[in-house]
Amino acid sequence: VTTRMATEIGQQPATLAATLDALLPRLAELRSLAAGRPHILLVARGTSDNAGVYGRYLLEIHAGRGASLAAPSLATHYTVRRSLSDSLVVCLSQSGETEEIVETQGWAAGLGARTVAITNVARSSLAAGADVALVLEAGLEEAVPATKSYTAQLAAVAVLAAALGPDDSTLITELKRTPAEVSRLLDRRLGVDAAVERLLGGESTLVSGRGLVYGTALEVALKLEESCLRPVRGLSYADLRHGPIAVVESGVAAILLAAADGPMVPGMTELAADLSGLGASVIAVGGNRAFRDAASVVVEGPDLPEIVAPLGLIVPPQLIVEQLARELGLDADAPRGLTKTTQTDRG
Amino acid sequence: VTTRMATEIGQQPATLAATLDALLPRLAELRSLAAGRPHILLVARGTSDNAGVYGRYLLEIHAGRGASLAAPSLATHYTVRRSLSDSLVVCLSQSGETEEIVETQGWAAGLGARTVAITNVARSSLAAGADVALVLEAGLEEAVPATKSYTAQLAAVAVLAAALGPDDSTLITELKRTPAEVSRLLDRRLGVDAAVERLLGGESTLVSGRGLVYGTALEVALKLEESCLRPVRGLSYADLRHGPIAVVESGVAAILLAAADGPMVPGMTELAADLSGLGASVIAVGGNRAFRDAASVVVEGPDLPEIVAPLGLIVPPQLIVEQLARELGLDADAPRGLTKTTQTDRG
Repeated sequence: VTTRMATEIGQQPATLAATLDALLPRLAELRSLAAGRPHILLVARGTSDNAGVYGRYLLEIHAGRGASLAAPSLATHYTVRRSLSDSLVVCLSQSGETEEIVETQGWAAGLGARTVAITNVARSSLAAGADVALVLEAGLEEAVPATKSYTAQLAAVAVLAAALGPDDSTLITELKRTPAEVSRLLDRRLGVDAAVERLLGGESTLVSGRGLVYGTALEVALKLEESCLRPVRGLSYADLRHGPIAVVESGVAAILLAAADGPMVPGMTELAADLSGLGASVIAVGGNRAFRDAASVVVEGPDLPEIVAPLGLIVPPQLIVEQLARELGLDADAPRGLTKTTQTDRG
Repeated sequence: VTTRMATEIGQQPATLAATLDALLPRLAELRSLAAGRPHILLVARGTSDNAGVYGRYLLEIHAGRGASLAAPSLATHYTVRRSLSDSLVVCLSQSGETEEIVETQGWAAGLGARTVAITNVARSSLAAGADVALVLEAGLEEAVPATKSYTAQLAAVAVLAAALGPDDSTLITELKRTPAEVSRLLDRRLGVDAAVERLLGGESTLVSGRGLVYGTALEVALKLEESCLRPVRGLSYADLRHGPIAVVESGVAAILLAAADGPMVPGMTELAADLSGLGASVIAVGGNRAFRDAASVVVEGPDLPEIVAPLGLIVPPQLIVEQLARELGLDADAPRGLTKTTQTDRG
């Protein structure tokens, strides 16, 4: 049996390449739109919000802008009035029809923001209302758990960071390597079976990552939860240290994510060792040799620098989630209680 | 047996009143420091971060500033360089010695920010390094789970919002009512026993709140987790709708928090009804009549408007957590694996 989710996971080398081809020619347009706007506000929910977390770190680190995630209720429920003339507002929605995101975009434009829409649907309300629409080339996504639209969103925010960052082509060069790396990971699946077997034990699960990879941890937790119907927590490294580590004991499965390089690997390695010491089963995705050595199950990650690692690092967990859902006898394509476009307020 | 945590919970009417008395005379100083700075960056971890979440909403809603929560790793690990000359940076730490918070404050000052420290220790590194130190009058806090220092932090951020907000005294008038309301809640404990009994069942637990009360939900989840050693998730209303609601079924206990008024009560009431319909036991804290009617256990909240409700709304859950820890035979004052001042990177 092939699920639509599996098919869509497998399309990612092509959808990533097509999205980069479509968006990389638009660097000058984005640079011009953002001129004189040192602040960037990202507006999203659910999986798109997890893509926004990557965007937040990347725009700060690579482009030196102040970037933060909006609380849409400030627009939709509290109708805050403040000038956004120093801000670029970036709204992410696969469908382009999530009402509170569309409403927040209109609110921002009315307060002086310039707006960028990142959506998979060219003829959507979000695209129509934006100053610049970055339309993803992910194609129709039928499975409720988003996979290829998520990696395409990551590519779009990376293109935005490239436009606003220093005038060198390093980020762009690395971005262009991501489709081939994703393809390699899909072929190899190293560690996927072992991770599924460990998670099938039904232990309580937590997921952690830090910095540029924090959004990936949140996305893995969300996917496991919605597709495999088990409570999973996605935690930043620091949040875990500040309380939840108290509940880690034998029987907990901890999925830890790290890029192969960058300033977060030593701390994530120390966390892997500490969690192992508390009796947790550590499933390491990515990282370097020391990180892998501190884990009990190792899942191969991408050979990409930290700055673009999230585009590949999510792929092995997508494979794990899809396989785990099937082995649990669940419908990965249409999880209980969820629909493709969530309206936060349905009343 | 009286725990230190119970003693410190009981001191809150006095510590809140003393903190307000100490800080309210400093409105002009704060207003002057923040002049020409439309952006506010809050820097904190753990319980202090949950106070920061309230500050973020309040500073946007009441003071019309752009407010966001910092990711300290951008300072400590990625050493981002960008101008903060349009920003006021507010660092919160009970001890004033959490290294990454102190380091982030120094980073911000070096990039042109003005800084405010909110700390319980006058002779701390954080207070010494700030342009303005708002020192809490919570007194020595000995229990590891913060209670009275948390409500004092909420009071401090509310004073800051009053300083930066419109020139009327509404917020200040309401703030001055909070000590008496906390005292009333401590005396009445309405619903506390029933909530403890429901939670003793050992079901999986989630906590949710929205907008100004979202930080309270995060704080209740953190307290339950660190003191009662059970995995608990604190989720925003929207995050819950976008995935985790898939795992709600019979046996889940959902603690929902709401102010007595404001734009979030209808949505929280709808959520209570939906979660009940999925088989969850809903424990409603605060809210209005309709909200309480949708719950199976009702815990009385404060008679305070939404804008200051978090200062009282946390108190009944503090009582619940302390009593639950005792009934579980746990040491509420010194939870396993935690220390009073957490250093995120200990290496």
